[in-house]
Amino acid sequence: MAKVKAPRRPRAETPKGFRDYFGPEVSRRKAMLDTIAGVYHRYGFDPLETSAVETVDALGKFLPDVDRPNAGVFAWQEDAEPEGAAGDWLALRYDLTAPLARVAAQYRNDLPTPYRRYAMGPVWRNEKPGPGRFRQFYQCDADTVGAGSVAADAEICAMLADTLEAVGIRRGDYVVRVNNRKVLEGLFDRVLGCDEGNESAQMGAVCDREHRKDDIFRSIDKFDKVGAQGVRDLLTKGRMDQSGDFTKGCGLTDEQAGMVVGFLEARGPSNGATIQELRNLIGNIPKGGEGIGELDEIAKLLAAQGYHEDRIVIDPSVVRGLGYYTGPVFEAELTFEITDEKGRKRQFGSVAGGGRYDDLVKRFTGQLMPATGVSIGVDRLLAALDARGGAGKRPDGPVVVTVMDRDRMADYQAMAGDLRRAGIRAEVYLGNPKNFGNQLKYADRRGSPAAIIQGMDEAARGVVQIKDLILGARIAADASHEEWKAQPAQTEVPRADLVAALRRILGQG
Amino acid sequence: MAKVKAPRRPRAETPKGFRDYFGPEVSRRKAMLDTIAGVYHRYGFDPLETSAVETVDALGKFLPDVDRPNAGVFAWQEDAEPEGAAGDWLALRYDLTAPLARVAAQYRNDLPTPYRRYAMGPVWRNEKPGPGRFRQFYQCDADTVGAGSVAADAEICAMLADTLEAVGIRRGDYVVRVNNRKVLEGLFDRVLGCDEGNESAQMGAVCDREHRKDDIFRSIDKFDKVGAQGVRDLLTKGRMDQSGDFTKGCGLTDEQAGMVVGFLEARGPSNGATIQELRNLIGNIPKGGEGIGELDEIAKLLAAQGYHEDRIVIDPSVVRGLGYYTGPVFEAELTFEITDEKGRKRQFGSVAGGGRYDDLVKRFTGQLMPATGVSIGVDRLLAALDARGGAGKRPDGPVVVTVMDRDRMADYQAMAGDLRRAGIRAEVYLGNPKNFGNQLKYADRRGSPAAIIQGMDEAARGVVQIKDLILGARIAADASHEEWKAQPAQTEVPRADLVAALRRILGQG
Repeated sequence: MAKVKAPRRPRAETPKGFRDYFGPEVSRRKAMLDTIAGVYHRYGFDPLETSAVETVDALGKFLPDVDRPNAGVFAWQEDAEPEGAAGDWLALRYDLTAPLARVAAQYRNDLPTPYRRYAMGPVWRNEKPGPGRFRQFYQCDADTVGAGSVAADAEICAMLADTLEAVGIRRGDYVVRVNNRKVLEGLFDRVLGCDEGNESAQMGAVCDREHRKDDIFRSIDKFDKVGAQGVRDLLTKGRMDQSGDFTKGCGLTDEQAGMVVGFLEARGPSNGATIQELRNLIGNIPKGGEGIGELDEIAKLLAAQGYHEDRIVIDPSVVRGLGYYTGPVFEAELTFEITDEKGRKRQFGSVAGGGRYDDLVKRFTGQLMPATGVSIGVDRLLAALDARGGAGKRPDGPVVVTVMDRDRMADYQAMAGDLRRAGIRAEVYLGNPKNFGNQLKYADRRGSPAAIIQGMDEAARGVVQIKDLILGARIAADASHEEWKAQPAQTEVPRADLVAALRRILGQG
Repeated sequence: MAKVKAPRRPRAETPKGFRDYFGPEVSRRKAMLDTIAGVYHRYGFDPLETSAVETVDALGKFLPDVDRPNAGVFAWQEDAEPEGAAGDWLALRYDLTAPLARVAAQYRNDLPTPYRRYAMGPVWRNEKPGPGRFRQFYQCDADTVGAGSVAADAEICAMLADTLEAVGIRRGDYVVRVNNRKVLEGLFDRVLGCDEGNESAQMGAVCDREHRKDDIFRSIDKFDKVGAQGVRDLLTKGRMDQSGDFTKGCGLTDEQAGMVVGFLEARGPSNGATIQELRNLIGNIPKGGEGIGELDEIAKLLAAQGYHEDRIVIDPSVVRGLGYYTGPVFEAELTFEITDEKGRKRQFGSVAGGGRYDDLVKRFTGQLMPATGVSIGVDRLLAALDARGGAGKRPDGPVVVTVMDRDRMADYQAMAGDLRRAGIRAEVYLGNPKNFGNQLKYADRRGSPAAIIQGMDEAARGVVQIKDLILGARIAADASHEEWKAQPAQTEVPRADLVAALRRILGQG
């Protein structure tokens, strides 16, 4: 008989660019999401959970990162029905805004207007995997659809500040920076309007104009990183960075570039001062004037509720990459310094952003539907709290009931049951009990606060041994070998006192 | 200039077979998942969150539903790197067990042994969409990997019973039924062993044997629905159901079918009696005897912890569809009657199931890795609680602060802010405030407990009007028009007493 070839074994590997989250990582993120949901909910936002899958048609081409045009979606074609026909193309959602736009259009007769919703969940990007860049990550969004008033934008900004404080970012350690796309458009009209801004421009010139606008906005967006001179170079002749990479310039004149840089430096000591300076610069351009008026209203609404410049500032240098924004844009930045992986001090940077997008729902319905919202990068926020050095991690491992006699499994399980009913996390060791050392090693690995031991002798006397592993670890770290040998971390208590004794060790009693 | 054709508008539609979940649906499921996670956690299980995407290679062909062989996965091929090479095939996970097997193999040197983990999240099935059948749904699993002892199976059963009670299923309204694949294999050997069970059987006969086994197990699985005579028909000459559909028979003799039915009816008044009856029937078949011994041990371990036949029963008719089970199998069934969509009374049926699968990790490593676990169908469980008529739904809408004067937006937002700081869900109306009736309709639609009203007159006097919408709705439903016109549901309070007054209405004071 022919030898049957053993089938090739599959590789046990997370797909490239994806990752797995274990125990405390999952718990911490969940706790943060719960806290954020609590704030959103208190503001009147309702949860919405759309499916992970959308038609490619509905998703559209709104991939947010204009700097990485290759960023794509994971997509596949449905089997045709009937056979031979072309099946729909489906894809994993790449953000939570596109599905909201679809929902707002689909259920427009059933949803309240305005519709405030929040959504939390993974999104997927078909990007080239790289260090620290994942193809699945969490977003946590809140949006108001159907409210054209800037009161809706102001509300989102206030809620964003409240949320950051709720998850543990201290006041003074963050700032919500607010700008307005209309103000940027006004600047653009002011800078280029004289030579290109006439309505009779031909199609090619319009395209070129949009193109130049993107280039200029992208240069402005780098203000934080490269400073005024850097932006000036990018806007004119181009700029070489420290690594020798050259970025082509936008070809503006020095005078035009000067206007832009003056605008970026318009941020004054107060929101009122900033708005006054903006008025001086571009207040007479129609779009600019309108945008400045909106910023003024947002600043006043927020100030009336006690959100002042220590938390929310008008900042003309905020651009936000997304092409679909049409009005106010905002960004939450953490201002404390961290030491990065190369040992350099730097500010932590952006953890959330958003803005007004009045055209997204219109794609489906043809009718204007104003909308504004914010997206919080939960994983970045968790990393920020780590970098800041948040609350110390309490051990959360279960009490481990060890197995001395395999025949007395039911007794051990009864102990674990008693502990659980008292709300104490507990488990019986379920591996091979032969090697007792392995059981204690296991308890250690689990981060157990205590191990319970009961052999024949203890059972006969109606007692159990409790090994306090937290105290044990401390003694092992601090004390001499002699002290360690005395094993004061192990005590004997009557079986009936098991729960009470554990409560003492866990600091619950 | 040529007229530019307007681009076709995308359809605003949830993809076929998928659905969206709104407000209370999301909150209720989340509350249930949190409760279940609490129980799992207390039993020492750690959360694990793998990515939604796996390589097709790692997923393998373990689609659980043997009755629907067309059930498939959503899969796509990665772009090749370098170009021209074949890219990996990726797919959305179809359950949470396959990713666990991958993780257990991949991290086998880092995870504690045994490794207890729980996982909750959506899974995807590329099935033909149908009424009530969705292509994305939640699973909620707990598994123990690396424990060969049936104490691990018993623990899962006890935890399952605890979980059902924790989410609100009353004792007596559910039962966890336990069987063992080895017992079923023993039965099979007993029934067919005489003519085909010899080791020198040729490859074809072996395949045929496996095939017949699947057919027989599938017939047994229908015992609940078609009864003893139905199973007898299915095992022999075939069976016609009420709708006229004919299912081909397995071709057993009447004597063989009698053995199977005798086995299915072996469930006695106590677990001890059932096990004795099983011993009489197939105790002398090696596999059967081994399986019966395991069931006996599970029953004894559970009884010692107070889990008796009112909660967990040994039931020889439990099969569970999944081909990969190798030992104990279990199923949680809700025993109360519901009225189905056709007005017929029936038992609610299965809401969770699981079992031991000792070979899944071996696929990757070549080494045996015992494992056992359970999966709870959260959406079914929620439907069950609905059908049972659980706790009445409390209205959870926000207090709506209406807008009488557009210029006094900041005052209205201050009111909402005060309420939120007191933990009361509140929002300012952000739609067009012109039509006041629309604002009250909106509050109604949101399920608001109260609306706050403050015009110029009230502002001048330092008061607000509070419209108690819960009371208002009750009056509108119960009382005469005269009483309604008197509007007792609206009261005026000083602005400073706003929070206290709302607390009274919400029953918090």
